[in-house]
Amino acid sequence: MCGIFGITNNKDAAHLTHLSLFALQHRGQESAGIASTLEGHMTSHSGMGIVSEVFSEKEILRLSGDSAIGHVRYSTTGSSHIKNAQPLVSNTRHGALALAHNGNLTNAAQIRRSLEEKGSIFHSSTDSEAILHLLAHNPGNLEEALIASLKAVEGAYSLAILTPDRLIACRDPHGFRPLVLGKLGNSYVVSSETTALTLIKADYVREIEPGEIVFIESGKVRSVKPLPQTPLARCVFEQVYFARPDSVVFGKSVQRVRQSLGRALAKEMKGFKADIVVPVPDSGVPAALGFSHESKIPFEVGLVRSHYVSRTFIRPNQEMRELAVDLKLSPVAEVLKGKRIVLVDDSIVRGTTSRKIANSLRAAGVLEIHMAISSPPIISACYYGIDTPRSETLIANHKNIDEIRKFLGVDSLHYLSLDAMLNAAKEGSSKDGFCTACFTKRYPTSIPEESSDNQLLSTN
Amino acid sequence: MCGIFGITNNKDAAHLTHLSLFALQHRGQESAGIASTLEGHMTSHSGMGIVSEVFSEKEILRLSGDSAIGHVRYSTTGSSHIKNAQPLVSNTRHGALALAHNGNLTNAAQIRRSLEEKGSIFHSSTDSEAILHLLAHNPGNLEEALIASLKAVEGAYSLAILTPDRLIACRDPHGFRPLVLGKLGNSYVVSSETTALTLIKADYVREIEPGEIVFIESGKVRSVKPLPQTPLARCVFEQVYFARPDSVVFGKSVQRVRQSLGRALAKEMKGFKADIVVPVPDSGVPAALGFSHESKIPFEVGLVRSHYVSRTFIRPNQEMRELAVDLKLSPVAEVLKGKRIVLVDDSIVRGTTSRKIANSLRAAGVLEIHMAISSPPIISACYYGIDTPRSETLIANHKNIDEIRKFLGVDSLHYLSLDAMLNAAKEGSSKDGFCTACFTKRYPTSIPEESSDNQLLSTN
Amino acid sequence: MCGIFGITNNKDAAHLTHLSLFALQHRGQESAGIASTLEGHMTSHSGMGIVSEVFSEKEILRLSGDSAIGHVRYSTTGSSHIKNAQPLVSNTRHGALALAHNGNLTNAAQIRRSLEEKGSIFHSSTDSEAILHLLAHNPGNLEEALIASLKAVEGAYSLAILTPDRLIACRDPHGFRPLVLGKLGNSYVVSSETTALTLIKADYVREIEPGEIVFIESGKVRSVKPLPQTPLARCVFEQVYFARPDSVVFGKSVQRVRQSLGRALAKEMKGFKADIVVPVPDSGVPAALGFSHESKIPFEVGLVRSHYVSRTFIRPNQEMRELAVDLKLSPVAEVLKGKRIVLVDDSIVRGTTSRKIANSLRAAGVLEIHMAISSPPIISACYYGIDTPRSETLIANHKNIDEIRKFLGVDSLHYLSLDAMLNAAKEGSSKDGFCTACFTKRYPTSIPEESSDNQLLSTN
Amino acid sequence: MCGIFGITNNKDAAHLTHLSLFALQHRGQESAGIASTLEGHMTSHSGMGIVSEVFSEKEILRLSGDSAIGHVRYSTTGSSHIKNAQPLVSNTRHGALALAHNGNLTNAAQIRRSLEEKGSIFHSSTDSEAILHLLAHNPGNLEEALIASLKAVEGAYSLAILTPDRLIACRDPHGFRPLVLGKLGNSYVVSSETTALTLIKADYVREIEPGEIVFIESGKVRSVKPLPQTPLARCVFEQVYFARPDSVVFGKSVQRVRQSLGRALAKEMKGFKADIVVPVPDSGVPAALGFSHESKIPFEVGLVRSHYVSRTFIRPNQEMRELAVDLKLSPVAEVLKGKRIVLVDDSIVRGTTSRKIANSLRAAGVLEIHMAISSPPIISACYYGIDTPRSETLIANHKNIDEIRKFLGVDSLHYLSLDAMLNAAKEGSSKDGFCTACFTKRYPTSIPEESSDNQLLSTN
Repeated sequence: MCGIFGITNNKDAAHLTHLSLFALQHRGQESAGIASTLEGHMTSHSGMGIVSEVFSEKEILRLSGDSAIGHVRYSTTGSSHIKNAQPLVSNTRHGALALAHNGNLTNAAQIRRSLEEKGSIFHSSTDSEAILHLLAHNPGNLEEALIASLKAVEGAYSLAILTPDRLIACRDPHGFRPLVLGKLGNSYVVSSETTALTLIKADYVREIEPGEIVFIESGKVRSVKPLPQTPLARCVFEQVYFARPDSVVFGKSVQRVRQSLGRALAKEMKGFKADIVVPVPDSGVPAALGFSHESKIPFEVGLVRSHYVSRTFIRPNQEMRELAVDLKLSPVAEVLKGKRIVLVDDSIVRGTTSRKIANSLRAAGVLEIHMAISSPPIISACYYGIDTPRSETLIANHKNIDEIRKFLGVDSLHYLSLDAMLNAAKEGSSKDGFCTACFTKRYPTSIPEESSDNQLLSTN
Repeated sequence: MCGIFGITNNKDAAHLTHLSLFALQHRGQESAGIASTLEGHMTSHSGMGIVSEVFSEKEILRLSGDSAIGHVRYSTTGSSHIKNAQPLVSNTRHGALALAHNGNLTNAAQIRRSLEEKGSIFHSSTDSEAILHLLAHNPGNLEEALIASLKAVEGAYSLAILTPDRLIACRDPHGFRPLVLGKLGNSYVVSSETTALTLIKADYVREIEPGEIVFIESGKVRSVKPLPQTPLARCVFEQVYFARPDSVVFGKSVQRVRQSLGRALAKEMKGFKADIVVPVPDSGVPAALGFSHESKIPFEVGLVRSHYVSRTFIRPNQEMRELAVDLKLSPVAEVLKGKRIVLVDDSIVRGTTSRKIANSLRAAGVLEIHMAISSPPIISACYYGIDTPRSETLIANHKNIDEIRKFLGVDSLHYLSLDAMLNAAKEGSSKDGFCTACFTKRYPTSIPEESSDNQLLSTN
Repeated sequence: MCGIFGITNNKDAAHLTHLSLFALQHRGQESAGIASTLEGHMTSHSGMGIVSEVFSEKEILRLSGDSAIGHVRYSTTGSSHIKNAQPLVSNTRHGALALAHNGNLTNAAQIRRSLEEKGSIFHSSTDSEAILHLLAHNPGNLEEALIASLKAVEGAYSLAILTPDRLIACRDPHGFRPLVLGKLGNSYVVSSETTALTLIKADYVREIEPGEIVFIESGKVRSVKPLPQTPLARCVFEQVYFARPDSVVFGKSVQRVRQSLGRALAKEMKGFKADIVVPVPDSGVPAALGFSHESKIPFEVGLVRSHYVSRTFIRPNQEMRELAVDLKLSPVAEVLKGKRIVLVDDSIVRGTTSRKIANSLRAAGVLEIHMAISSPPIISACYYGIDTPRSETLIANHKNIDEIRKFLGVDSLHYLSLDAMLNAAKEGSSKDGFCTACFTKRYPTSIPEESSDNQLLSTN
Repeated sequence: MCGIFGITNNKDAAHLTHLSLFALQHRGQESAGIASTLEGHMTSHSGMGIVSEVFSEKEILRLSGDSAIGHVRYSTTGSSHIKNAQPLVSNTRHGALALAHNGNLTNAAQIRRSLEEKGSIFHSSTDSEAILHLLAHNPGNLEEALIASLKAVEGAYSLAILTPDRLIACRDPHGFRPLVLGKLGNSYVVSSETTALTLIKADYVREIEPGEIVFIESGKVRSVKPLPQTPLARCVFEQVYFARPDSVVFGKSVQRVRQSLGRALAKEMKGFKADIVVPVPDSGVPAALGFSHESKIPFEVGLVRSHYVSRTFIRPNQEMRELAVDLKLSPVAEVLKGKRIVLVDDSIVRGTTSRKIANSLRAAGVLEIHMAISSPPIISACYYGIDTPRSETLIANHKNIDEIRKFLGVDSLHYLSLDAMLNAAKEGSSKDGFCTACFTKRYPTSIPEESSDNQLLSTN
């Protein structure tokens, strides 16, 4: 997954972008980057790691300019490399261009093969570079080239593109990924989530609409919608898990949606008896609160999340490895001992983490563990940007609910129904249309042939 | 503040110590270190930064041994230097010694002056080095020298001392800082907090008692209590704020004590009307839950804590500076808008953070802010290891409650009473005796003359 | 300037390349890189700095393969950037390709403009990337594409190109830069200079001929010469200054040529009286020895070169700055005091270094300084790879010899004549044809229009 | 070996010290450090590596002051550690002290044992720390304590000691190591060698005399000679090999002495026939020149020294290892082929390097190699600071000259006689008295019992 941000017409453009990337850091911790422009000259810096590792004072000062875009990235296995860090920056026939992309194209491989045949040289292994090469190949002015390029790509994309004289934001016609427009004094701002707007005290203007291209130039916003319309397919998993609870995504408060999911789950489990409701922190907290409010079972903090987790951990043997995994979540024995608990989490992917949590709760003296998940079983992979693993490794892909329950070692297991989830997600919202592919295998686009991982070169 | 850990008779001594320092990381993020022994040879490594920054696989492997001690440190301003990182390791007349200290001596300056007169050369600016020099100067065997040295020092100390053939743990007669004994198979373990025992799956045996010295050698524990007895003065602030909620400190569950503090506060505010109870995360959460349970005002998550905060932040101007402080806590506008809230926190030190939080809650549309603090006003500095600033900068030192309320910009301000706090802290516990100096100025020992910051040398 | 190396069919390919780059390090200290292939897979690593800074054991091990090419680079001001480090590595329609280039194309800007019009995206600011893009654009097999590409470029190039199944070496038809073929057991080797062959104990086979393309595949060498013939224009400055004295360049021993240049200079100064001959170390030593042998004036070491010179020197004020420049060469006062010296150097570029040396010799008590240069005055810039500065900054471009003498503060100044230099350079060699453009302004090709430094983007 | 430097009363004290450490870098490349004082406050910085690695602009600026001392260090095997880097800086009963030491004490172990018995804690494994602890233990004022301390130590020491108000320089009564006094405007300067004075344009005043203590305070020099007189024992190896050729050491030009050594060797080999004289660069150059002048055999550069040698070289197998050693010196085949050469070097230690050089000369086609060494055979270890290895590994310790010749694989082998060496070293000098222990086993002091390497602790 990724987060993108852009701002124009502001003397603190690079500082505000830097600050905003902290607010979007949950969307990607693998690499970070900023490109900025000052008087027709473009500068950029990117690096592997989280924002605080990538940028020192020196880089931020070097990036001083009046417009900037930023990017944080989390990649799938195998392509964690500085060449894939964004913004991608290049000189093309349209001049200097920087591009930040959130989402995943489903026809990138075909585009790449066809462009290589025409003489293009790809430098990264990201699908995002295909957009850049299409732009470089398409004649006409930049607007014409961009429209032609977007007509050629399929899949999920929220984009921020920076040129020496404008900022362009666009969102694919399905609207898979969020993208919002804000205003800070005379500056326009675009961001994956509203939390960045709140942080820099910008006002929320509106969503960039699915299929919309917005040009921000000389302090003015101009919008075009040249792409063929398609049914909406907004990613419901942004609401369930991915976005920050303080953000407003697809027009809805994420915290409120998650509380509603918890309430809905409690309704579906009506009459269920337990002593306390315990969330898996941090993502399970809002649903657990909603569950507690609805069910009247008291909410308790039974698991403490550590903020200090080793990234380069040493695991000399199996025993040490097992211990290391407990670092992140610690049970509060005094709260848990002898209790029947409803353990609330947002989702189960492989099931291994949930099983470890269950084990550690048992060790702390919990009597009964009833696991309550505020979304349906995840059964298939995402091709639109969420880093769920291959379908085979999703526990619900090949086990039924009772098998999962046994695997987790819990006393009962409850998933929210698809309908209840969608009702909670759209409640109070005038718009409809979510992508539920990971829960239903109903993909709103054609999906890529089996991805070929046989890269021919690797570089450091 | 600091955290200490030690383990003997375990082939994974360094790995387990490394792991445990992650669990104690909240007690100090400035430096970290481990010393270990293998067949009479002592090895150590320490560095500035958090545990994950200080140790790579290479260091941990180099530290392989069968006994080890570890230390995490947070210093007061001005002496943040690698020379002060612990464990302190030295060759003395008693052979090789490593020492890890939590607490603060109140007569370190006198000891230092007197030892320098006798020819000692101090290399760090820590009080802990005084203990090492006393050990080096005192004749007899190590046990005799240790007893003589501890008789000479005053103040707070929980110590783990490692020699090539044993591990020694001791705690000052007032019992200011916690220290517990655990057992993992055939290995004895000492730790500042029980959370490290839980993590490595060691059993909790008991507290190291105030005034006790424990020698662990050849798999056996031997205890002596040679120091003059004094009234207990356990740091109540460990319970209020410092320790991890999943730890058992001074025999009590920290999470439970904090919930009790919240309940007690709700009782003292009986009849108070508000729409929701909102904690300042993470430390205010248990008290807020207790408050909500007692008062029946619903608990809501109105502030989201970010896990990604820049340590080396760029603040080119006042405007950017102001924005940067909001990074850590973000208001959830949908939860807060139009509400009268009880904002629960554990304590107020300078008041500047609380004021910023209040501002940001107002901006998010809160109607009324009623601040409820689960401890009394902090009016004086700590000389026993808590890193409270000089008395002058403590807001309650020179402002009354209404002045503080105005400074914070809140509608009402409520502190828990001293009696109620002490009742909650000792509830269910057979032992009595807390240090309340920061709330009452009643110091259980003589305190140092005005600390002289005129260091004569600084080294990198 | 740059140095290139390649080896095939050797299990130690990366190690031998690494070693050889040390031997070629004098040809470029700005960046270094290696690409290697193993069973169809290509790996590469490059970085800023000298070879010992760029490669650690980890990288060399990662590069294990059976064929490899390497590159060291020294760039002109302004484009010192990791993106310009070579080998350039890319996926193209012809598969994975790595390219190492020594020399400078004179029509790179035109090629770039034309390729950008066709949709190419350039990632570096080097002319070398143009060759890669031409290869990617030209259809047919790799050999056809390479011939078509080389027909399109003008200027100086010695190239080593690595693909998963072969090593290709080529040299432009003018033969500006050296490139030799060697053999080590069953492995063929190509290198900018023979010193690398000597180091790895490879036998010297022959020069790669001007206009020749050599394909090394399955342990066999195949040669084609498809490019139109042009007069030879081998860089005489390689002999005068650039190459290592232990190398054989263009079929001649560099050390011997330099001694001959010194002898020729002594002949042209026949009858000149002085007490001692002193070289400017290290490059002036062979010519000074030749001068001494011919003139019978004793050779003395009057200047000592320091091997420890700061790259990141601190110069707080003019005074300190002046001192810092003396670090590199120290006069030996006892040798120099009261003497009339012939100071021998290979060339004068800006004149500032020579002036400083003259000053420091005066301070050491030299009576008379007679400067003798073993080549003619440098009056114009090089467009074929030597990093001479723009013509305006060359002292002999705008001052006559007496003006230069005054600027340097020496008692007399003597340059070798063009004819004598060329006679020394070709003596004993059957081949003719040198480029003398820097001494004569007679460029063997058309030269680039005024170089435009207005880069549109910069990236770190 | 080590180099020391000090300067007082100069606003650029740290910059000039930094610069001078570059000039003394040949005396030690393992660690470097500077301590400076400003208005009674002492600051220091030291690190592992060469001067350019240890100091960045930041550190030099932090060290701004009006007096400073500096140190470069090369240690013997096993104690390469930052704790041993100098200047040693400490707070003692005499206030803040920084100490830089060149030389080696022969009774450091006894002093250490005795001080540890009295309660001292040693932090480094250097003998230099013993001086610091003696100072800290001795009562009275600093001058009294220093005299008492120096009376207690034996062996070689040239010292620079910095306090907040003065600079102290002293040299042991045997005068093992050099130390000179210079003057730069109103600033006094002390340095191991005069080359640093030349660099910073300071005037050479005189040697610090053996047994002299010089106090530099308030711009005045005061000298005392309180130590018992002993016969002079100046290290002749400084002249033969160690010092820089442009320095004046013990009152003599090093370059001139080395040329005399070469002349003397040629006289002892009178009538010897060969085609050319070839030095082993750089240290063999002056002796080879002297040899050539005396013998009339032409001097030629037959070996080229590379300035780029890897410190962290990868040697995957024996074959690669063998190649790597040739990196430093390359034969110039055209000069050597078919020649009978006199190969001149200053000394032979283990013989392995000389053997490798001989091998590589043979491979380049040399007909006969006659090795001529400008000093006698080294037969015993140095206990006064030169890093010669243990006696067993010195080739001349257990092989006679013909055996050495065979080991090296040369046609004949010639050493200079002891008398001739001493005559050359003292020629023109009024003073007598050299230490020749490494050539004669006649140690001018008692030497340490077998050094015990069994350190009890190691720290990073």
